[in-house]
Amino acid sequence: MPSSTSLPAPSPNSSLVDADAVSDLYKVMGPAVEISGGSAANTMVGIASLGGKSAFIGKVAEDDFGKIFAHDIRAAGVAFDTKPSTGGAPTARSLILVTPDGERTMNTFLGVSPELSPRDVDADLVASGRILYLEGYLFDRPDAQDAFRRAAEIAGAAGREVALTLSDSFCVERHRVEFIDLIRERVDILFANESEIMALYQTRSFEDASRQAKTDAKIAVLTRSAKGSVIFKGDKAASVPAAPIRHVEDTTGAGDLYAAGFLYGYAAGRPLDICGHIGSLAAAEVISHMGARPETSLAALVAARGL
Amino acid sequence: MPSSTSLPAPSPNSSLVDADAVSDLYKVMGPAVEISGGSAANTMVGIASLGGKSAFIGKVAEDDFGKIFAHDIRAAGVAFDTKPSTGGAPTARSLILVTPDGERTMNTFLGVSPELSPRDVDADLVASGRILYLEGYLFDRPDAQDAFRRAAEIAGAAGREVALTLSDSFCVERHRVEFIDLIRERVDILFANESEIMALYQTRSFEDASRQAKTDAKIAVLTRSAKGSVIFKGDKAASVPAAPIRHVEDTTGAGDLYAAGFLYGYAAGRPLDICGHIGSLAAAEVISHMGARPETSLAALVAARGL
Repeated sequence: MPSSTSLPAPSPNSSLVDADAVSDLYKVMGPAVEISGGSAANTMVGIASLGGKSAFIGKVAEDDFGKIFAHDIRAAGVAFDTKPSTGGAPTARSLILVTPDGERTMNTFLGVSPELSPRDVDADLVASGRILYLEGYLFDRPDAQDAFRRAAEIAGAAGREVALTLSDSFCVERHRVEFIDLIRERVDILFANESEIMALYQTRSFEDASRQAKTDAKIAVLTRSAKGSVIFKGDKAASVPAAPIRHVEDTTGAGDLYAAGFLYGYAAGRPLDICGHIGSLAAAEVISHMGARPETSLAALVAARGL
Repeated sequence: MPSSTSLPAPSPNSSLVDADAVSDLYKVMGPAVEISGGSAANTMVGIASLGGKSAFIGKVAEDDFGKIFAHDIRAAGVAFDTKPSTGGAPTARSLILVTPDGERTMNTFLGVSPELSPRDVDADLVASGRILYLEGYLFDRPDAQDAFRRAAEIAGAAGREVALTLSDSFCVERHRVEFIDLIRERVDILFANESEIMALYQTRSFEDASRQAKTDAKIAVLTRSAKGSVIFKGDKAASVPAAPIRHVEDTTGAGDLYAAGFLYGYAAGRPLDICGHIGSLAAAEVISHMGARPETSLAALVAARGL
């Protein structure tokens, strides 16, 4: 029996692809709509839509997609000043196939994104933020890992909190030890979905993974799609249901927007279960339409629900 | 009283802008969604969606937008083999602002599009088509006008029919004489909306413009938004209502898709009023969502309505 059978099945609906594969896939896929995305970028846009202040540090190239990305995130009210790279890899893209039931298959070409380096980390910006939010996707490249560590050090020295999202179960499996170290040493709030947290702790049991997560992370926020989320802090736990929704159009961005709602509530000092409810509401908005960024004011939605 | 008061008010919701203006506008507009478009290209995509065979001749650059345009139109089933240009103007784009009631303001930067030249006209392709469809937008550039005339000659020599859409009332005003000549000498089917046909004949009266259009064009197809369309052939006229629709999301592409439905019916030898009904149905589909290309199979819609 090969040892890999003891691992949970890797998330079947998200994978990283190289430049050739993304080009081949694009040739055979149908007409498409281009919308800015990127997990942590979506989260920052969600926070801005909730009325919070947010900034993004990330690498794009000086191509059309890079210009569109910069336009859209700034137009959404998020500060974004990372210098675009020139002459190298293109701006990242993800070819996302959405089925009529709203489920999506992502084929992500990271492009220039992992070329983020410690030099790109704006120390003043990081020190000024209430929470630093790190996205696990870039962990494959040592320079990007260094950028993470540098940002976490700056935040720690400034007395800020550090949040991490695991982003992808394949990436988690490649860097289990480094992620667990980072979580134990530097992370205050860990975000993960079921497949990511089970990949991190190499278990098929969500309960087992939860037990380990709440030991390692000060706060562990575990999302479970339609089953809602569970928030652990020490020996306290809160279960938060998913917000009701009439029609799921496209699940892309659900986790990103949940994190936006949670972090917005957390930064405002709200109780953890309320943070989760705001996250559920933001996630429900984004899965009700195509694309991973809110189409309506999340602040208005939150106000309408009395949160 | 200035003489311009005798002209109809130019269409307030569509204008051509230069490279600087499109760049300035983009800076101040909100987050956007990028979708392939282009009036005649949308029409060809509509014909393919109806189950017809269509091809497109038009100029894009070798940039990201050009590649996306080529991908999307081919993925929709339309033949597209015009060589992209290199090193000059970029691929055309239109910044379209859509209000909650579905009305749109288009700011179109034509980019490389008017650089279409007679050399780009594939004679075999034009001769093989049942109908040649010309889009008025490119009339500002003599080389593009020559491309039009060349294509119309090839179609005429092959015994094919020629259709023309006026596209834009400003463009019509700049080239009234040339358009009227083209319509009288070469055009079998003229498409125009109210503001375009009134600009062509310099009148504030739609009835007056209609009388002149039916004299000049063998078949004149005049669209009137929610009021439907009127089709003139000799002394016969058919009024076709707009197809009912629950919610107008974005009117972009309504005229393009009406032309698609009409031409598809016409090429199949259907009566002119049925051609108009198919046009209305295709237009209703495209205004029910964001973007100027159909999101569902128009062939299935037509079949469901028993057309």
